[in-house]
Amino acid sequence: MRSSREEIVDFLMREFPQNTCVIQAVGNGSATVKHEIGTDQLRPGGTVSGPVLMTVADVALYVAVLGEVGIVPLAVTTSLTINFLRKASPQKSIVGVCKLLKVGRSLAVGEVALYSEGSAALVAHAVGTYSIPRKGHPDYARPDRGTSKEIEN
Amino acid sequence: MRSSREEIVDFLMREFPQNTCVIQAVGNGSATVKHEIGTDQLRPGGTVSGPVLMTVADVALYVAVLGEVGIVPLAVTTSLTINFLRKASPQKSIVGVCKLLKVGRSLAVGEVALYSEGSAALVAHAVGTYSIPRKGHPDYARPDRGTSKEIEN
Amino acid sequence: MRSSREEIVDFLMREFPQNTCVIQAVGNGSATVKHEIGTDQLRPGGTVSGPVLMTVADVALYVAVLGEVGIVPLAVTTSLTINFLRKASPQKSIVGVCKLLKVGRSLAVGEVALYSEGSAALVAHAVGTYSIPRKGHPDYARPDRGTSKEIEN
Amino acid sequence: MRSSREEIVDFLMREFPQNTCVIQAVGNGSATVKHEIGTDQLRPGGTVSGPVLMTVADVALYVAVLGEVGIVPLAVTTSLTINFLRKASPQKSIVGVCKLLKVGRSLAVGEVALYSEGSAALVAHAVGTYSIPRKGHPDYARPDRGTSKEIEN
Repeated sequence: MRSSREEIVDFLMREFPQNTCVIQAVGNGSATVKHEIGTDQLRPGGTVSGPVLMTVADVALYVAVLGEVGIVPLAVTTSLTINFLRKASPQKSIVGVCKLLKVGRSLAVGEVALYSEGSAALVAHAVGTYSIPRKGHPDYARPDRGTSKEIEN
Repeated sequence: MRSSREEIVDFLMREFPQNTCVIQAVGNGSATVKHEIGTDQLRPGGTVSGPVLMTVADVALYVAVLGEVGIVPLAVTTSLTINFLRKASPQKSIVGVCKLLKVGRSLAVGEVALYSEGSAALVAHAVGTYSIPRKGHPDYARPDRGTSKEIEN
Repeated sequence: MRSSREEIVDFLMREFPQNTCVIQAVGNGSATVKHEIGTDQLRPGGTVSGPVLMTVADVALYVAVLGEVGIVPLAVTTSLTINFLRKASPQKSIVGVCKLLKVGRSLAVGEVALYSEGSAALVAHAVGTYSIPRKGHPDYARPDRGTSKEIEN
Repeated sequence: MRSSREEIVDFLMREFPQNTCVIQAVGNGSATVKHEIGTDQLRPGGTVSGPVLMTVADVALYVAVLGEVGIVPLAVTTSLTINFLRKASPQKSIVGVCKLLKVGRSLAVGEVALYSEGSAALVAHAVGTYSIPRKGHPDYARPDRGTSKEIEN
């Protein structure tokens, strides 16, 4: 069952307060998120740091997956590959546009195009996979507890 | 010409104040960095977020490259692939151990093993590539200016 | 200077006789290649083997790059990432559609969508990078010699 | 339940006759395979083609997985990332050494180091993931039928 943008925004605010991306759109197997760029997001050379771009890619995937399968908080990244293509502007927000390539019962795969806001020149391109806990599995709808607990290996 | 750990720590403090990793060791084509984990680094499920692990991998690569080729601030990530293997403890620092696989004249490739401090169970594994500006190239020793400038496409 | 499909077909026949893909189209930063599937291309489970899909992706990239920069025989793959999404039909040819994401002076990046001929369901998705020797570099227009020679490290 | 080298060699001869790699060793979460290099395996520039290296990486992973979990013919590659580091000798066999990083209930991750036989200089490095059908799942022990059948999406 799908989620609307409002439901996902609400979920992120409650359970993922560390998130610094803004959801611009979600639906139809896609998602668009945005991240403002300030000095904290830069690296030597005055361009947006790789980790910021990777974060935007990862969140765009997460949001697209939630939009497609519903609020499944413990969907987790299993892999990500990113190619950095051009320097991003230090003065523009980063926009990540995710398109899901496949959503299976337990794995979703999507690609993300990353841009400096207002420019059509691709800054980076990522492909990532997300693992989706099965319905009925204890992980399916478990909220973020934030307390210490057993680490599952 | 190689760099010592002290030279790299000093460089990062001056030119990369956004960096949140601590360099534990560098040399011999390797580097070890550490990142403390607090609530800001967590995600739903109470485990370390993917972006934090990607950041540690990227910084470990950067430090290993600088250790091998000298302080070349504008060495930049060209690609990164990461596989997430196990949940990291929300209560331990993340340790990233980078081993360079090849350092060419313009490209370096390395792999990074990521652990929860004190545990030998691999949390994630990354392989990344860094582009190294050539000596004589205007980008070779240019410090971080942090001002607005032309974006090179 | 770009190459036409005929020029690339001719080049491959002369210098890359080991190639088993057929070029269907090339131009505009793209290329489409096809590979027939027989018993030799299958693996346990009666589906197309991963290596065949990887080969099609790699050749699609090579052809797209040659189409864009001209016949530069020693353009070589520097990296490839592929995600396998669905089982390919053992009875259909594999079609690979490459779209270049960026063509720089020394590096090209492209993505390849792989399908069973006649089906719109993505069988696999790849992203690869190609290194392009510079004009003037001895490697730029050197044909395939096939003789023993020094290996450049 | 693990498999011995002889069991895997025997299985490959029966169910995977298309395989052109020779298993040198398997066990302890590792595997070593070898592929002879002749003109068919070369590409323009007289070096071993990318697809041959990708094939060796993929087979090394498959063998390592079978060695670890037993003969599960329908274990399939879900992803592979390879970085090409140095030109391989056109006159030496390619050796692939796989080390599994994690073997879970349904997914295995491993890395493969590829060499020209007799040389310690890494020719390429790959990381791949394999999906392992669960025991009890109809796919678990199904042999290769090689006949036309329904494609599972």
